[in-house]
Amino acid sequence: MTYLDHAATTPMRPEAVAAFTAVLTDAGNASSLHAGGRRARRIVEESRESLAEVLGARPSDLIFTAGGTESDNLAIKGLYWSRRAADPRRRRILVSAVEHPAVLDTASWLARRQGAVLETLPVDETGLVAPEVLRAAVESDPASVALVSVMWANSEVGTIQPVAELARVAHARDIPFHTDAVQAFGQIETSFAASEADALTISAHKIGGPVGVGALLVRRGVEVEPLAHGGGQERDVRSGTLNTPGVAAFAAAAAAVTAELPAERVRLASLRDDLVRRVLAEVPGATLNGAAPGAGRLPGNAHLTFPGCEGDSLLMLLDAHGVECSTGSACSAGVARPSHVLLAMGAGEAHARGSLRFSLGHGSSAADVDALVAVIGPVVARASRAGELAGLSAG
Amino acid sequence: MTYLDHAATTPMRPEAVAAFTAVLTDAGNASSLHAGGRRARRIVEESRESLAEVLGARPSDLIFTAGGTESDNLAIKGLYWSRRAADPRRRRILVSAVEHPAVLDTASWLARRQGAVLETLPVDETGLVAPEVLRAAVESDPASVALVSVMWANSEVGTIQPVAELARVAHARDIPFHTDAVQAFGQIETSFAASEADALTISAHKIGGPVGVGALLVRRGVEVEPLAHGGGQERDVRSGTLNTPGVAAFAAAAAAVTAELPAERVRLASLRDDLVRRVLAEVPGATLNGAAPGAGRLPGNAHLTFPGCEGDSLLMLLDAHGVECSTGSACSAGVARPSHVLLAMGAGEAHARGSLRFSLGHGSSAADVDALVAVIGPVVARASRAGELAGLSAG
Repeated sequence: MTYLDHAATTPMRPEAVAAFTAVLTDAGNASSLHAGGRRARRIVEESRESLAEVLGARPSDLIFTAGGTESDNLAIKGLYWSRRAADPRRRRILVSAVEHPAVLDTASWLARRQGAVLETLPVDETGLVAPEVLRAAVESDPASVALVSVMWANSEVGTIQPVAELARVAHARDIPFHTDAVQAFGQIETSFAASEADALTISAHKIGGPVGVGALLVRRGVEVEPLAHGGGQERDVRSGTLNTPGVAAFAAAAAAVTAELPAERVRLASLRDDLVRRVLAEVPGATLNGAAPGAGRLPGNAHLTFPGCEGDSLLMLLDAHGVECSTGSACSAGVARPSHVLLAMGAGEAHARGSLRFSLGHGSSAADVDALVAVIGPVVARASRAGELAGLSAG
Repeated sequence: MTYLDHAATTPMRPEAVAAFTAVLTDAGNASSLHAGGRRARRIVEESRESLAEVLGARPSDLIFTAGGTESDNLAIKGLYWSRRAADPRRRRILVSAVEHPAVLDTASWLARRQGAVLETLPVDETGLVAPEVLRAAVESDPASVALVSVMWANSEVGTIQPVAELARVAHARDIPFHTDAVQAFGQIETSFAASEADALTISAHKIGGPVGVGALLVRRGVEVEPLAHGGGQERDVRSGTLNTPGVAAFAAAAAAVTAELPAERVRLASLRDDLVRRVLAEVPGATLNGAAPGAGRLPGNAHLTFPGCEGDSLLMLLDAHGVECSTGSACSAGVARPSHVLLAMGAGEAHARGSLRFSLGHGSSAADVDALVAVIGPVVARASRAGELAGLSAG
C-alpha cells in the first residue's frame, strides 16, 4: 500500500505509541487529588512543558483540546464572543477564503446565528493572502473587527502564509490574530513566539500522535470565551477530563517530529519535487497548483490538476492500484463539490474538480513515488476517457 | 493501592485495550475515500451499531464526541439554540439543582451570554427531582421552555432519577428532554428507548473505555445546533476527525460492561452495602447521604459524611494509607467549596464539607473494602482533631 495522504492523518510514531501505551491502563483522573490523580496530573504537566518548548510557547499558553476542529472553533467563537462582549461594535470576522471548514463554517455560523459579519479575504493564484489585502479590510473600519484568522499553511495546496506579517497588521489595531497551524506543525518551523499570533491551533494526529487530541495556544492576556463549560480543567477555558495518555503521546510525537524536522523537511521536499516532476512527465497536460516548490510551500505537499478528469474517479482508480491520496481535505471528502480553495485561487470549476492532493510524511519513501509514477499515466488516460464520455471538457 | 474512585475514572478494560491497540497504528481517516479510510469508516460504523444495540438505540441516534462534557454542552447549547431559533419565546432552561457542572455551568453561561433564563429544579433530601416539581415549573409557562435536562444518576451521591417520568412531563408540552447518563451507564440498565429521553450523554472512560471519547444520543427528528463546526463528520452536528481507535474501544467496553451488568450490579451493591455498614460501625457519628441502598441508588456508590471533619483532610489521610477516593466530582476537585449537590439536598455547609465519595467498579473487591475499613477509624479520629483545632463544629 502506498499511502500519500499524510495531510489527512499520519500513522502514529513509535515514540507516541510507546508514550500512549505506557499510561493507557493507569487509573487516575488528572483532576483527582489522590496519588493516582496526581500521577496523571504530573504526566499532563510534563507533556505541556515539553510541547510548549518545541512550540516556542510558555506552558501556560497551552489549552489541551480534542483536536484541531475543536481548537479552531474555540479560537474563532471564543475570541468573537469575548471581543464582542467587551465592545458590541466588534462584529466583523476576517478570515482567508482558503481556510479549513473548521474556521470557515464556524465563522459562517457566527454570522448566521450570533450577529457576526463574515468577510473572507481574497487570495492570489497561489493561495496567498497579501498583508495589504488584510490591511485594507481592517482599515476600512478597525473598531468593528472582532478577530482575524489566517491559516499558517493550506490543507489542500500547502501554501505557507506570512503569518507574522499578517499578525502585525491586526495588532496595529489591537485586533487578536489566530492561525490554524494544523498542517504547518511538523512540516516547517512553527514557533508560537515567531508567529506573533495570539492564538494558534495544532492537532496531534497530523504529526504522528493519536487522533482525538489537540491544543489551542493562547497568549497571556488574550481573553477567550469557553466553548465547552464544566469542570474548567484547562484554565477555565476548556472543560472535560484531561486525556492523559493522549497528551503524553502528543508531546512524544511533537518532540520526535521537531528533532527530525531539519533533515526531514529537506528529504520530503526532495521526494515531493521528484513526484511532481515525474508525474508531470507522465501526464503532459497536468499542472501543479499552489506555490512553486520552495519556501512558500509545505515540503510534503503536491497538488495537481489533471484536465478532463474527475478527481474522485482518479482517486478510486489509484486506490484500486494501492495508491491512497485525496481530492482535497479529508474533512470535505465525499462531498461532490469543487474545492473552495481552488475556486478562491481563481481556478475554473472543471479545473478544481480534476485535482488530487498527494501528501508525504514520516515513512514516505522513494518507493511510494515510484508506485504512483508507475500507474498515474494509465489511470489518467482511463479517467480522461470516462470524463469525455460524461461530457467534461478539459477547459 | 485501593482504588475507590471509579466514578471519577475507571481503568480500561482488557477488551477495550485490545480493541484500541488493534487499530491504534492503522493509518486512515474515516472520512477518506480510499481503502484505508474505508477500513476506518467500517470500524466506526460497526462500533456505532454495537453501541446502539447495547443502548437500545438506533445507530443513527449516536453522535460521537470527545466525552461527557462535550456531549452535555452539545445537548444543552444545541437544543437551546435550535429551539430558540424556531421560537424566540423559548428562553427557559430547566435543570435539576444537582446536575454535573458540564450541564449547570453550560446553562449558566447561556443565561449570562445568550439570553437564556436558567431555572434549577429543587431536589428532596435524597437528591431526587419529583416529577410534580418539574410539572409545576413547565406548566407555569410551557411556551417559554427551551429544554429540560435531568441527569439519570447523580455523580456524587448516586441517586437515580425517574427519567422516563420526567421525560413524559416535558413531552406533554413538546419540550425536548436531555439526560446525562454518564454515571448511570454501566452501573444500571440504561436503554435510550426506555428512558424516553430525546438526548442522552455517555462517556467511555467511566465504563472502562478510553478517556477522550463519548457520545450524545439524539432521537430522530430532534434538532440540535452544532457546537463544533467544520467537516460535519457526525450528521453535520459534530465536526472533527473521527477517533477510530477510541470509538472501537468504547464499543468493546460497552459490550463487556453490558454483558456483565446483571451479575455485576448485584456484586457491587453487596460490596457497597458491606462498605457502608462497616464504615458506619467504625465511625459511629458518620451518616450515609442520598438514597437508601436499593433501587434508588447506583450500586457502586457510597457517599458518607464524617461530622467535624474536612473532606479534603480525610481524602489526603486516606491517600497516605493507599486508599483513593474523592470528596465529590473529580471535575470540581481542588475547588474549596462545599458540594452544590449536598447543599441542594438541604445539608448544612459543615456537613457538606465533611463528606467523601467511595465509588466501586470493575475490579473492586472485598479486599478494597477491608483496606478502607482498616484505616477509616483512625483517619477520621485524626481529621476530627484537626477539625476541632480549626474550629469546625460537628453541626
